Amino acid sequence: MNKKYPLLDEINLPEDLRQLKKSQLTQTADELRQFLIDEISQCGGHFGSGLGTVELTVALHYVFNTPHDRIVWDVGHQAYPHKILTGRKHQLQTIKKKHGLAPFPKRTESEYDTFGVGHSSTSIGAALGMSLGSQIAGTEREVVAVIGDGAMTAGMAYEALNHGGELDTNMLVVLNENEMSISPNVGALSRMLIKIVSGRTYNRMRERSKRIMRRGSWLWKFMSRWEEHTKGMFVPNTLFEELGFHHLGPIDGHDVEQLVEKLEIAKEIDGPKLLHIITKKGKGYKPAEEDPIKYHAVGQFDPAVGIQSKSQPSTPSYTEVFGQWLCDMARIDSKMVAITPAMREGSGLVEFSKLFPKRYFDVGIAEQHAVTLAAGMACEGIKPVVAIYSSFLQRAYDQLIHDVAIQNLDVLFAIDRGGVVGPDGATHAGNLDISFLRCVPNMTIMAPADENECRQMLYTGYQHKGPATVRYPRGKGPGSAILPKMATIPLGEAKVIRKGAKEIAILSFGALLNQVTAVAEKLDATVVNMRFIKPIDRNMIQKMALKHSLIVTIEDNVIQGGAGSHVNEVLHQLKIQTPVLNLGLPDHFQDHGTREELLEEAGLSAESISKQINQFIEKKLTTKMYSI
Amino acid sequence: MNKKYPLLDEINLPEDLRQLKKSQLTQTADELRQFLIDEISQCGGHFGSGLGTVELTVALHYVFNTPHDRIVWDVGHQAYPHKILTGRKHQLQTIKKKHGLAPFPKRTESEYDTFGVGHSSTSIGAALGMSLGSQIAGTEREVVAVIGDGAMTAGMAYEALNHGGELDTNMLVVLNENEMSISPNVGALSRMLIKIVSGRTYNRMRERSKRIMRRGSWLWKFMSRWEEHTKGMFVPNTLFEELGFHHLGPIDGHDVEQLVEKLEIAKEIDGPKLLHIITKKGKGYKPAEEDPIKYHAVGQFDPAVGIQSKSQPSTPSYTEVFGQWLCDMARIDSKMVAITPAMREGSGLVEFSKLFPKRYFDVGIAEQHAVTLAAGMACEGIKPVVAIYSSFLQRAYDQLIHDVAIQNLDVLFAIDRGGVVGPDGATHAGNLDISFLRCVPNMTIMAPADENECRQMLYTGYQHKGPATVRYPRGKGPGSAILPKMATIPLGEAKVIRKGAKEIAILSFGALLNQVTAVAEKLDATVVNMRFIKPIDRNMIQKMALKHSLIVTIEDNVIQGGAGSHVNEVLHQLKIQTPVLNLGLPDHFQDHGTREELLEEAGLSAESISKQINQFIEKKLTTKMYSI
Repeated sequence: MNKKYPLLDEINLPEDLRQLKKSQLTQTADELRQFLIDEISQCGGHFGSGLGTVELTVALHYVFNTPHDRIVWDVGHQAYPHKILTGRKHQLQTIKKKHGLAPFPKRTESEYDTFGVGHSSTSIGAALGMSLGSQIAGTEREVVAVIGDGAMTAGMAYEALNHGGELDTNMLVVLNENEMSISPNVGALSRMLIKIVSGRTYNRMRERSKRIMRRGSWLWKFMSRWEEHTKGMFVPNTLFEELGFHHLGPIDGHDVEQLVEKLEIAKEIDGPKLLHIITKKGKGYKPAEEDPIKYHAVGQFDPAVGIQSKSQPSTPSYTEVFGQWLCDMARIDSKMVAITPAMREGSGLVEFSKLFPKRYFDVGIAEQHAVTLAAGMACEGIKPVVAIYSSFLQRAYDQLIHDVAIQNLDVLFAIDRGGVVGPDGATHAGNLDISFLRCVPNMTIMAPADENECRQMLYTGYQHKGPATVRYPRGKGPGSAILPKMATIPLGEAKVIRKGAKEIAILSFGALLNQVTAVAEKLDATVVNMRFIKPIDRNMIQKMALKHSLIVTIEDNVIQGGAGSHVNEVLHQLKIQTPVLNLGLPDHFQDHGTREELLEEAGLSAESISKQINQFIEKKLTTKMYSI
Repeated sequence: MNKKYPLLDEINLPEDLRQLKKSQLTQTADELRQFLIDEISQCGGHFGSGLGTVELTVALHYVFNTPHDRIVWDVGHQAYPHKILTGRKHQLQTIKKKHGLAPFPKRTESEYDTFGVGHSSTSIGAALGMSLGSQIAGTEREVVAVIGDGAMTAGMAYEALNHGGELDTNMLVVLNENEMSISPNVGALSRMLIKIVSGRTYNRMRERSKRIMRRGSWLWKFMSRWEEHTKGMFVPNTLFEELGFHHLGPIDGHDVEQLVEKLEIAKEIDGPKLLHIITKKGKGYKPAEEDPIKYHAVGQFDPAVGIQSKSQPSTPSYTEVFGQWLCDMARIDSKMVAITPAMREGSGLVEFSKLFPKRYFDVGIAEQHAVTLAAGMACEGIKPVVAIYSSFLQRAYDQLIHDVAIQNLDVLFAIDRGGVVGPDGATHAGNLDISFLRCVPNMTIMAPADENECRQMLYTGYQHKGPATVRYPRGKGPGSAILPKMATIPLGEAKVIRKGAKEIAILSFGALLNQVTAVAEKLDATVVNMRFIKPIDRNMIQKMALKHSLIVTIEDNVIQGGAGSHVNEVLHQLKIQTPVLNLGLPDHFQDHGTREELLEEAGLSAESISKQINQFIEKKLTTKMYSI
């Protein structure tokens, strides 16, 4: 019987790969690509990026002595082939599933995963750190960062290049240009890369010399090297050269033998160097090549027919609620603009970008700039809406404080993926935002309990003068009817959802209200939808604490400094001694799993909430009577 | 009597300046410089940067129709001449003082202050926002960002350039190259700028053409323009051109007439453009030119003799305690490295940088990169110490979470300027760090009450496996004896400082312990130095709450989500109902003033603390008995 993957079957670790002849690498790459298509179409996961880096992965592990030498993958969407070649072939089906492989490189998962990633543009800085660190530790080690052109738009990549370029440290940056981050790329850098690639004189010359030389010959090798050293004469100086990097390429990133040759040359060059390769996202699977956005991350599909468009879902996700609101609001107010740091699709901005192209700003992977740009616009009486994921907002924390909040500027933050996110793991979790936003003066913070409330809160935040945030979770809500009409919610006003007996009042913040009402039915508890984390409804807290024997706070944010913590502060200020049970996410980073699995793990399923309340009630109470 | 400032005396607002003839501008600039020297030597303040931008300030307000046209000053150290020319000449003496002028541009202070600054590298993004905003609002406006070469090392400046370069929006960036940020500049960019400036062919040619033309003649003007359009042929392409900016200059930034001419040319060019000027920090005051670091910010001094070196102070500041510890620790452990984002002097790293140059990394104004670099180093078994100001750590918040904390890497953060900072105002306040750090899993957070504790905590954090922070205030502590011997403090262990009567226990976090003990004497209260914000001493909290009738928590951080909030959470978890008074900084941004003034304003002087405790005791207590 013919084996489907004759070479790949023999490779368990990179050291097996390194036994092969260079001439066998093309077939290895082909098998690896087929394996990836076969497996991911069955189990789902990130798809297009991995297809684009098959040859690069083979070449890197072939040329470099991994794991002694370090490969740092930026973002990590593209690291599936790397996982396959580094002993995790047979676990690939578990990827993104609880207790399965992580979707990104992860240090605790494999010694080949040198640096945990998920957010973009960290690889050059981390690699530089490893290179300097090895040097200080007295270990000789090659360090390679693999970064896409999309990730190059982030400031921290530039900061690392700027630092690396002045040092003599050995470090190789592989710039993987595929003209895509997740959304199509923007920015001047992108234009510059196109200019380099299309540098005619250079390319014509290169083609000519190739024609007269047999590939792999001594002359060919010599010319390849010479080419690198003289390229500056024919193509424009690049940003990378300006910054002190020896610039190799651009070359075809799907030609594995050429990659191996160039990587070997790069290895010989001392100091910081950059190899520019051109790849195609989705390479080798036609539908993914043609629609890379659709195939960035996939569910199960039949590779023979591709992803079939699903029937329209009956209820919209929070992201879609936001997207719809944005278009509605833009029709009413011509001073509204929307800003995204390269997350048009993820943040629900596709329709807005088509309807209002002049008021739509995709700034690239540049969260810091997104927020300061918004602040600048707000100075001119424009009303910017910054659409951003909770965990990516961490990148713009100083800008939110320094440029928006201190100046009390009128910017609305639509924060998607707040709370438990799920399959993407700890790097993408939005578990901290309520805490890190609540300490910032001037900040209004809202969290909707359902879709319609999300819409009305966005409207409220938009009308509010000053910085405001609406923070909503990934995925769908309970499916509430969405009122087209928009009305502001009075600032800081909570709402009683259910009046129960006098024992328990549950103060719910945000998306877990459904679980909470289920629990409340069972326990006959009062339920309040707090709606505002800041300003908080102090009167409601006081009233509830005086009427009930136990206050339960619940939120999908860590307890440390979260919304429940605000309730504690208020009660202590009011000198009310009603006991409080704070429920929320744990003080550790949760691994990947479904949103439901992670909520259950955090004790926030309806059943767990009941159980925790009952346990707390049974706990001994120590009442200190106040004697002075 | 001859007037000292005949022209300047007539200028109250830029419109007065714009009445002058171009030929009078040099004298205006000279008077402005003299005025600045005369005033600042009397009242103190930022000095060298302002001296370097005198001519630029005159030229900008002369050419542009301010405040309709917008000037955005980066960082703002250099904006004193701008304040003088925009109606605040007679208040200059109040600068940095409570209720006086702010040390940086501030929107609420003047309509000429278009954007509040303090942190570096925001100007390009803000200016781009203003330019786009004006365009959308239908207002024609010129927008100018003035940024130093030091500030150009920050990623967010690059993000903004990258975005601006692809748009056709009118925006002028004035790159003020003085080869200094506060510390001397680092990075490849700096090297590139030097290369541009020394571009021989170009300079030789320019000099020649100047010799044959009379300045101001028609030919000279024509040539000046031609020069701009052909410069690309003689000097290397620059990063800025790569990014899509029309690059003018470099020109002498102390030649005010030339500045005016170039700015007028720039005004005519559509789209994004950059004027590169060369200035000298401290220009026109010899001692400041020769030692720009010493004269960056000054106290009172006699301009005739310059700053006299003071006698060595008897007690070291916290910054000096850190600097000493760093050197001591480096001698013991060869795997220690120290990283600073361009704050060698401010963070106390001068001696370390001299003693251990190979283990010292100044990465430029690049907080994000500083932290990810540290993470990369930690992966190789190196132990990095990141020395950073509290408010600047906000810039690296995602890197702290994503690259260090999630991976539980062994990085020590030495956080200076925690809590109330003072004269630099809200932008430099360290009021939030305890809150934004406490919610991050895996993070150990310490705050010393005195100098020796600071040293021992640094040692403890260094020895601890995993991320740790030691957060200390600006200035001096109480003057405790510093033990050369270093010993670890048991993780999460608080310490009773004073045993009082059974009424009040004060749990003190960090630097306010001195005030607290004064209060405790008066009230006969128990005092605990909590030392650790995380992990917190739960046993101590429990013991104190059971023994006392009132718990007071105190910290120089906002109450929202701070250390006291942690105590609340613990008590509720333990179901202990002892009343708690949380004292800390207010939920608004404090304006500038001395540290003492701001603490007093926040109710954290010894007297105010007593008063607040007494008021709280008198307040009605509502005890909810627990009925279920």
